[in-house]
Amino acid sequence: MTGQKKLQGIFTPNMVPLDEKGSIDEPALRAYVDWLIQKGVHGLYPNGSTGEFTRFTPEERRRIIEIIMDQNADRVPVLAGAAEANVRETIAACEYYHGLGVRAVAIVSPYYYRLSPDNVYAYFREIGRNTPVDVTLYNIPMFASPIDVPTIQRLSEECERIVAIKDSSGDVGQMMRMIEAIRPNRPDFSFMTGWDAVLMPMLMIGADGGTNVTSGVAPELTRKLYEAVNGGDVDEARRLQYVVRQIFDRLLFGADFPEACRMAIGLRGLKMGPTRQPLSEDHKKKLEELGPQLGSLFAEAGIECSGGMSETLSPKEIGRVVASVLETFQAQGRF
Amino acid sequence: MTGQKKLQGIFTPNMVPLDEKGSIDEPALRAYVDWLIQKGVHGLYPNGSTGEFTRFTPEERRRIIEIIMDQNADRVPVLAGAAEANVRETIAACEYYHGLGVRAVAIVSPYYYRLSPDNVYAYFREIGRNTPVDVTLYNIPMFASPIDVPTIQRLSEECERIVAIKDSSGDVGQMMRMIEAIRPNRPDFSFMTGWDAVLMPMLMIGADGGTNVTSGVAPELTRKLYEAVNGGDVDEARRLQYVVRQIFDRLLFGADFPEACRMAIGLRGLKMGPTRQPLSEDHKKKLEELGPQLGSLFAEAGIECSGGMSETLSPKEIGRVVASVLETFQAQGRF
Amino acid sequence: MTGQKKLQGIFTPNMVPLDEKGSIDEPALRAYVDWLIQKGVHGLYPNGSTGEFTRFTPEERRRIIEIIMDQNADRVPVLAGAAEANVRETIAACEYYHGLGVRAVAIVSPYYYRLSPDNVYAYFREIGRNTPVDVTLYNIPMFASPIDVPTIQRLSEECERIVAIKDSSGDVGQMMRMIEAIRPNRPDFSFMTGWDAVLMPMLMIGADGGTNVTSGVAPELTRKLYEAVNGGDVDEARRLQYVVRQIFDRLLFGADFPEACRMAIGLRGLKMGPTRQPLSEDHKKKLEELGPQLGSLFAEAGIECSGGMSETLSPKEIGRVVASVLETFQAQGRF
Amino acid sequence: MTGQKKLQGIFTPNMVPLDEKGSIDEPALRAYVDWLIQKGVHGLYPNGSTGEFTRFTPEERRRIIEIIMDQNADRVPVLAGAAEANVRETIAACEYYHGLGVRAVAIVSPYYYRLSPDNVYAYFREIGRNTPVDVTLYNIPMFASPIDVPTIQRLSEECERIVAIKDSSGDVGQMMRMIEAIRPNRPDFSFMTGWDAVLMPMLMIGADGGTNVTSGVAPELTRKLYEAVNGGDVDEARRLQYVVRQIFDRLLFGADFPEACRMAIGLRGLKMGPTRQPLSEDHKKKLEELGPQLGSLFAEAGIECSGGMSETLSPKEIGRVVASVLETFQAQGRF
Repeated sequence: MTGQKKLQGIFTPNMVPLDEKGSIDEPALRAYVDWLIQKGVHGLYPNGSTGEFTRFTPEERRRIIEIIMDQNADRVPVLAGAAEANVRETIAACEYYHGLGVRAVAIVSPYYYRLSPDNVYAYFREIGRNTPVDVTLYNIPMFASPIDVPTIQRLSEECERIVAIKDSSGDVGQMMRMIEAIRPNRPDFSFMTGWDAVLMPMLMIGADGGTNVTSGVAPELTRKLYEAVNGGDVDEARRLQYVVRQIFDRLLFGADFPEACRMAIGLRGLKMGPTRQPLSEDHKKKLEELGPQLGSLFAEAGIECSGGMSETLSPKEIGRVVASVLETFQAQGRF
Repeated sequence: MTGQKKLQGIFTPNMVPLDEKGSIDEPALRAYVDWLIQKGVHGLYPNGSTGEFTRFTPEERRRIIEIIMDQNADRVPVLAGAAEANVRETIAACEYYHGLGVRAVAIVSPYYYRLSPDNVYAYFREIGRNTPVDVTLYNIPMFASPIDVPTIQRLSEECERIVAIKDSSGDVGQMMRMIEAIRPNRPDFSFMTGWDAVLMPMLMIGADGGTNVTSGVAPELTRKLYEAVNGGDVDEARRLQYVVRQIFDRLLFGADFPEACRMAIGLRGLKMGPTRQPLSEDHKKKLEELGPQLGSLFAEAGIECSGGMSETLSPKEIGRVVASVLETFQAQGRF
Repeated sequence: MTGQKKLQGIFTPNMVPLDEKGSIDEPALRAYVDWLIQKGVHGLYPNGSTGEFTRFTPEERRRIIEIIMDQNADRVPVLAGAAEANVRETIAACEYYHGLGVRAVAIVSPYYYRLSPDNVYAYFREIGRNTPVDVTLYNIPMFASPIDVPTIQRLSEECERIVAIKDSSGDVGQMMRMIEAIRPNRPDFSFMTGWDAVLMPMLMIGADGGTNVTSGVAPELTRKLYEAVNGGDVDEARRLQYVVRQIFDRLLFGADFPEACRMAIGLRGLKMGPTRQPLSEDHKKKLEELGPQLGSLFAEAGIECSGGMSETLSPKEIGRVVASVLETFQAQGRF
Repeated sequence: MTGQKKLQGIFTPNMVPLDEKGSIDEPALRAYVDWLIQKGVHGLYPNGSTGEFTRFTPEERRRIIEIIMDQNADRVPVLAGAAEANVRETIAACEYYHGLGVRAVAIVSPYYYRLSPDNVYAYFREIGRNTPVDVTLYNIPMFASPIDVPTIQRLSEECERIVAIKDSSGDVGQMMRMIEAIRPNRPDFSFMTGWDAVLMPMLMIGADGGTNVTSGVAPELTRKLYEAVNGGDVDEARRLQYVVRQIFDRLLFGADFPEACRMAIGLRGLKMGPTRQPLSEDHKKKLEELGPQLGSLFAEAGIECSGGMSETLSPKEIGRVVASVLETFQAQGRF
């Protein structure tokens, strides 16, 4: 218990627009932050997996948080991804982001090497004891060393600065196991899901919110779903969950993650620029085909595309937007 | 559409009691059937994974269905596991069980060999074209070749005798993908979950029911959960789901599946007898420790143990029941 | 130590030819046995994974061994797959095959359910204590519960009737771990590999032989490879290993296992008949393309195809053979 | 073909000693380089997985190569790990290391995100087209996106600057697939294995050498094994391979990788200092138990420990060395 308001609601794991040279596009990032807040996201979550934290340098990661904190100007709480090369650098990032006023940091479990649970524990304990700012554990077993339930429980009991878990396993049963193990002793501890395909079921069995990639693309939808669950409107929540799942599956599996998100944000009329990951011709074609699919899903869901109302956006216009988005992708070369 | 009532509700994947020689204990099986129906299960599902179909001979599998159909006497619909050594034998089993009056059969995807999706399709198409009785596809990727969504969709469109999918993946998002792909064209097609840890979320996003191992041990609980969801009592459904999950986790992970189920049914006062799988000393000890844990969970949930009300069953009495259950396990030797 | 000669050399996991009704084709099976022995295999291994033991009934499995033992007439040692539905039935099969005079049985670890190592141990200990015939443990982790090194070691120390391990993991380091753990105490214990892609490296680090699917298709090659290693001709062994690997990869990955083997044996001029596993149109096409590839590999290796010398078999002739093989596959329908 | 000598022999993936503050211990690193060269390694491979490249900052990674190039003074070829946050940074590192005179760089496939094969190809093609220095592809599927055989083949045909693959899958069959696909068109292309458990089999089927963690701990052994294979002494090579495997298994699985290496190098009398990964109490205990095991293996193999001849190092002396190594580990705290 660190006295602050419990983390809840939908936090957007936001991407970082790049300019034609492949550098952080500050004006576009500021515009994206404004757009997200205006569309109703409860919080921002930069330097996460969606935010491609591994593809930026340590200096760039700090610069991203600086820009966002400045542009946000205290409108919504910010959860800053703070994982660095080692525990010393990570704690230094916690200190720096604390100085910038973030609500909390999120720290992914050590990746590349697969650590055993006891060393995952030792890693977060070291951070928990030395951080000046609240910490969210970030469990994403498909990319990093898994954080198992006994480890989360132990950390929640020993470190009051550790205040939340973000779980991207998508396993609803696992979420229940975590809540059961930790909530009785730590009612302030927050449970966030990163798996939008099951956002409604997660909220219905007791999760506090999510850090959902879909909310960076269609913040209106995830906000409405969250409110439908909280308002007890199960039928509406279910209806929205099916729409969210369709978009989410394309964002995750339509192309190598998170390339489809970049495309989809572009479809909403925002400037995202080229990617840092060289794309094969096959992948560019995949994205070309994905554009109209996402456009149709947006249209069905009544979401505006590219500055105009989606309902009135013709297939031809969607095609034009996709082409323009791809053009910036093509520009990547040796950015 | 084969004109019959859609499969829905909780079907119990029942175990088969054995006598001291390791043969089917017919009186005990009849008593177990009566007990389950009296406790309110919507249907029975013999010769499934819980029913250890692989550990019986082809003749024994037929005998099990005969006994159950006779004892059931049309009280509840029966879903009979019909997988045999090859497609010809499987179709023969479908014909035989049809003659006995089962509501439908359930056929697990080919196991041992891992088939590619197109051959899983070819296998079920062959069955779908030749079966006289409705067929439930059974997807259990941890034990058998996975049945993917395009395969289910294709089979549902080509074979009207294929009327349901039982999915034991536990993936709520996957259930949504299946419902989305198949329900529009086949409103009579039924979606059943075999993963009790998420029974409530599955029902809330649209599943029709489940074949749930927990219902063979605590049929009162799964029945209540099903009714709470259908009655719109979300809070009660959630409360029950947490209890079901605790029991389910022990049934699945407390010992090599399905040994803990045998123990747990014994705790309810029913005779199950020895197992056909030789157990190590470590495993016997695991089961010894599991007994009191399950006894406590039953007591908390207000479930009767061993003929008396659970609330009044003392730890000493639970110990005595466990010892007696284990004694029959010890008897296994070369049954 | 049971006094018998140590198992060594290349044992052929032979397939079972079927007639047009899908029943065991006894004359074709007898002809195949003769052909294999004449081509120089050291032993036969019916009712293995290649032999599709799971797709036959218990009665058929016994019939297969009867035919083979009769036809073999003591020419080569026979290793009979004896896994049945449960430990009692398995021991009964051991007794039956012992009466027929097999050299040893091979028993796959329990499959479908994934057992923990201590119950894998308990299963084989029960068999080891009650079998009248030597037992080979069969480890094939992609299909059945894994048998780990401590389990093999424990069984080798406690049960003298357990005389060999057949390992189909393909992990050369794992083979070394097994040899290191067991050979010092059991010099009579035999180590056989089922992974032809690395047969030469396995033999070079100390394995005693193999049960190799390639030997059922091209027995000349595996025999030569075995002799090259034993004769110290490393260069020739390496050359042959590259050829064997090319054939093996197609047998294993060219189509769902073991369909490509059936095709390949047909190419050698033997009658195999239809498969019991319904095949999709995609799969039939795959096999159609695979035929000429295998034909070319055989030709390059100087192996006769279809009664004529391979060097002189024209592409047109290969095409004709493939077409005829596929025709029998087409005949499968409801065999 | 870039005109340089083909990469072959045993390259040591060297660790980086740290001082008590957790910074690079330059004198100790220089001493370690001298020791390795003196013991006969064919080359050095800093900034690999063993070298914990992910736990250093970009500046530190450059500093490590500077120190090593300076100390090496052209005695052995150096293969420098050059993977950075993105393709632009990675190419910049290639340029920098080229300027320092490295023989080649090694670049691990993108990690954290799992890329599809076509984007793995796109990534390396971008590097291959822009690097001034020879590139070794680094495939380590347990930690990073796999590089499949068609991708390696395509890159080998399109980019002459890509001159080698380092494969840490340990799959001997896979090595044969690579050699078969690439060697005919690129005889200069080098195949290196990173899986010491099967170093001898890999060399016998045609690999050119290895980057072997064991060589950083016991360079005498891997050198002898390499020479035994090349000299045609199969029996000696096999004998050495069994010893190497025993050491390798402990280095890899005795503790979270690469902690046991640090310990083992300490046992050889070199100063390694604390680790950057916080260790649990359980893990410290594991290392404490591992020390004497490694000490015994070294003694059996006739390898000197800690300045004295191993044959004469008493258990008490090994205990003392382990204690002293662990003391520096304890010192880690917030280094």
